[in-house]
Amino acid sequence: MQFTALQIAQLTAGTVEGNAHVAVASFGKIEEAKEGQLTFFANPKYEDFLYRTKASIVIINDTYELKQQVPATLIRVPDAYTAFATLLSKYQEIMQLQLIGIQEPGYRAKTACYGQNVFIGAFTYLGEHVKIGDNCKIFPQVYLGDNVSIGDNCIIHPGVKIYADCKVGNQVTIHAGSVIGSDGFGFAPQADGSLKKVPQIGNVIIEDLVEIGSNTTIDRATIGSTIIKSGAKLDNLIQIAHNVEIGNRTVIAAQAGISGSTKIGNGVMIGGQAGIVGHIQIADGSKINAQAGLGKSLKIPGSVVTGSPAYDYNKAIRSQSLARNLPEMEKRIKELEALVKQLLKEKIA
Amino acid sequence: MQFTALQIAQLTAGTVEGNAHVAVASFGKIEEAKEGQLTFFANPKYEDFLYRTKASIVIINDTYELKQQVPATLIRVPDAYTAFATLLSKYQEIMQLQLIGIQEPGYRAKTACYGQNVFIGAFTYLGEHVKIGDNCKIFPQVYLGDNVSIGDNCIIHPGVKIYADCKVGNQVTIHAGSVIGSDGFGFAPQADGSLKKVPQIGNVIIEDLVEIGSNTTIDRATIGSTIIKSGAKLDNLIQIAHNVEIGNRTVIAAQAGISGSTKIGNGVMIGGQAGIVGHIQIADGSKINAQAGLGKSLKIPGSVVTGSPAYDYNKAIRSQSLARNLPEMEKRIKELEALVKQLLKEKIA
Amino acid sequence: MQFTALQIAQLTAGTVEGNAHVAVASFGKIEEAKEGQLTFFANPKYEDFLYRTKASIVIINDTYELKQQVPATLIRVPDAYTAFATLLSKYQEIMQLQLIGIQEPGYRAKTACYGQNVFIGAFTYLGEHVKIGDNCKIFPQVYLGDNVSIGDNCIIHPGVKIYADCKVGNQVTIHAGSVIGSDGFGFAPQADGSLKKVPQIGNVIIEDLVEIGSNTTIDRATIGSTIIKSGAKLDNLIQIAHNVEIGNRTVIAAQAGISGSTKIGNGVMIGGQAGIVGHIQIADGSKINAQAGLGKSLKIPGSVVTGSPAYDYNKAIRSQSLARNLPEMEKRIKELEALVKQLLKEKIA
Repeated sequence: MQFTALQIAQLTAGTVEGNAHVAVASFGKIEEAKEGQLTFFANPKYEDFLYRTKASIVIINDTYELKQQVPATLIRVPDAYTAFATLLSKYQEIMQLQLIGIQEPGYRAKTACYGQNVFIGAFTYLGEHVKIGDNCKIFPQVYLGDNVSIGDNCIIHPGVKIYADCKVGNQVTIHAGSVIGSDGFGFAPQADGSLKKVPQIGNVIIEDLVEIGSNTTIDRATIGSTIIKSGAKLDNLIQIAHNVEIGNRTVIAAQAGISGSTKIGNGVMIGGQAGIVGHIQIADGSKINAQAGLGKSLKIPGSVVTGSPAYDYNKAIRSQSLARNLPEMEKRIKELEALVKQLLKEKIA
Repeated sequence: MQFTALQIAQLTAGTVEGNAHVAVASFGKIEEAKEGQLTFFANPKYEDFLYRTKASIVIINDTYELKQQVPATLIRVPDAYTAFATLLSKYQEIMQLQLIGIQEPGYRAKTACYGQNVFIGAFTYLGEHVKIGDNCKIFPQVYLGDNVSIGDNCIIHPGVKIYADCKVGNQVTIHAGSVIGSDGFGFAPQADGSLKKVPQIGNVIIEDLVEIGSNTTIDRATIGSTIIKSGAKLDNLIQIAHNVEIGNRTVIAAQAGISGSTKIGNGVMIGGQAGIVGHIQIADGSKINAQAGLGKSLKIPGSVVTGSPAYDYNKAIRSQSLARNLPEMEKRIKELEALVKQLLKEKIA
Repeated sequence: MQFTALQIAQLTAGTVEGNAHVAVASFGKIEEAKEGQLTFFANPKYEDFLYRTKASIVIINDTYELKQQVPATLIRVPDAYTAFATLLSKYQEIMQLQLIGIQEPGYRAKTACYGQNVFIGAFTYLGEHVKIGDNCKIFPQVYLGDNVSIGDNCIIHPGVKIYADCKVGNQVTIHAGSVIGSDGFGFAPQADGSLKKVPQIGNVIIEDLVEIGSNTTIDRATIGSTIIKSGAKLDNLIQIAHNVEIGNRTVIAAQAGISGSTKIGNGVMIGGQAGIVGHIQIADGSKINAQAGLGKSLKIPGSVVTGSPAYDYNKAIRSQSLARNLPEMEKRIKELEALVKQLLKEKIA
């Protein structure tokens, strides 16, 4: 799809400087963009590139004063970065709206149903009583087990597997390879030393506006539901164990892991590769830093912890800094020992 | 499927109190259960819920004395939790037994074969000489490479990929998205700085009664076999490198990683996100705590280690506690320095 | 496929000792090999096995002097291990060359095209304008989104998902379940506390000779490209965030994670479960040890860091060793305190 400078000016409520009929078909960074591409200029650090960019159109701040001539057509807006991002969002929406239809071959149980304007890719499996809402885009090779329901306006990327009985809300995006609803990890040791599986008959509930990255795993509850609340955002390769609850708008970075039955509050931020033990509570607005290993509940909203085992961030920073200088501290102790020994010796003498 | 209170009493060897003909079709927690659901009451903490649960049937201990009337039909048993869990297991078995048949479209090489009462889901790929035992449930979108063999009573969840030549025993469960038999990570640096791939021609052997979580990866051996021994249980997102051996009934939590050629004993417990270096041995019954980084063999059975680098748990706990208080320790050294300085000064004076 | 001792001697430029017509069909380790298998003997530690191996053929060093009779046919070469490895590589190449053809059912957009001698497995999805080079082996259940291009001589294992617009070079191998091109993790907090998705419209470029393990995730760039440079090798379950660059021949072990926009130099080694913060640079030839948590750029080529937070390896080793002995250090401080107290007391007296 092509857009002229004039069309882009209309979409961004901007004004054109230069050839209004020049057209672009894709996007680029100002330092890399080629002819036929649209870019933006906002960060003064990249000023040099502005004057020699090969991009055909540059979105630029109203207030910026040119120091020399610019080869590209300019579109003047109050905030170039925001205008560019808005444009990208609109473009992606347009592209997605065009994605409609049912590809073959597919497997769709007779009791499965779906709404209007959906896309269902090839090799996708819809089990018995599966329900898919309006405007959903279900990419190829997805598996939706029996009784799975998906709300409206969801994007389920290729190869996602959702086990039976799980529920997905509206405007949810799940990236490729993620697994929703696999069994929780529960085995009861028996008298003979063997491990008996604890049946996992709960499900996973994913509320509205959630985004889940690629190859993340969310286990079903033993009984009841593992819940990812509205607006939460999960990155790639995250482990969410059985019966966990993740609060509204909580953000979890890649490779973090949450153990069974832990309840995470709203607006919590969890860093990459952090690990959280089972059966604890994390208060709203807390921050668990990358690679932290958290073994205790955080009861005070807005707590910040770091380290493994994790504790208060400010204390931890001081202790970590001293730990790095332990050789120096050891030297000071040695010196003290020598001096005290000397004092004792002289006293005796 | 529906069950009456009378049927459930028979399955659990219990006795009915109330309407024996009321029926349930699913399970719930006592605080959440709805009409038409079965629940249990065992933990006194939930006593309040017992008297106002909407569940139609509650399994309850023989010894519990009611303090007021209960709306639900009760089933009295010696141990409510165990009876409920047993019932769930039986229910899941019944459901699985009903899952029989070959879905289309599928790809099944002419030399592939399978036993009785199997389920093979749509879009599943069976390579040349694949063998699948009796009562296996192979879900949709599974890949079984050439010469893969699967024993009896296995459950292979959607999207599992098993590379050529790997062997799976009986009563094995593998969850969605796991990869069995990908190449070990081996590259030999060459004189010109390039990295030449070391061919990985071994396989993976998974013995009986093993359970593997979702999106876990188990690499094939360079030569010989990577082995997961009988009764071992692996959680989600675990990395098992080439030529590793995991002992009988060893349990590994999510996101742990075991490097190449390491041999883990029997009954070992490995915590979440723990990492274990290559080419070492872990004695039977050892415990490696969550996020530990183990760089040396554990030769004494029942060893417990923690930390990164990992060492003896009891020692580590004391050191970690002191490390957290390093600012306080530094203050004590400073005070000592001041006092000694004072003593030296006075001595000279 | 069967090979006689004579054929193997020709392939390895070796000489036969024993029956030149005995044939083998597979490979084994000297301690496990069975009749009909080929093995090698190089490590004196395994000498005992040489004299009782059941292997039909053993590749052995020219210089090794037999101490007793060996049941197997021997093939004498200058370097047994190298000869064996070379043979394995040749064998795998032969096997792969035989893998040719298009399996059905498949989904191939009309605008998708592919070169000569390709294999495309069943249930594989080729989107619009997909290009696949010569001699590529695309296994079953792979997803290649619109405009994806794959060079020559690539192996894409089962279930790999490559999102639209990503580019893969020549001689690239990607293992099962890996996801290339999922959205970067970017959300802008809004005034009302909600999180607005930052559109991710870049792509991933994978250059020549790269190998990627199983269930690894590589996110597309926000704008521009996430780049894995020529000859880099990535293990399983690795997270590469948006706009990251990985240098030539850099090696990354399993479960490591690289945050957004970080640039890793050439010939860098990153250990398992290491985590690297976003927006930093790592100089060529640096080494980041397993489980390290790196928060700052490494500007000096050949830097070695360890720990979380990570710092200079040699310093860290000394500090970690002292940290382990903190209880002993605390005892020394206590003794000093007692002695100084005594000295002060006596002074007053």
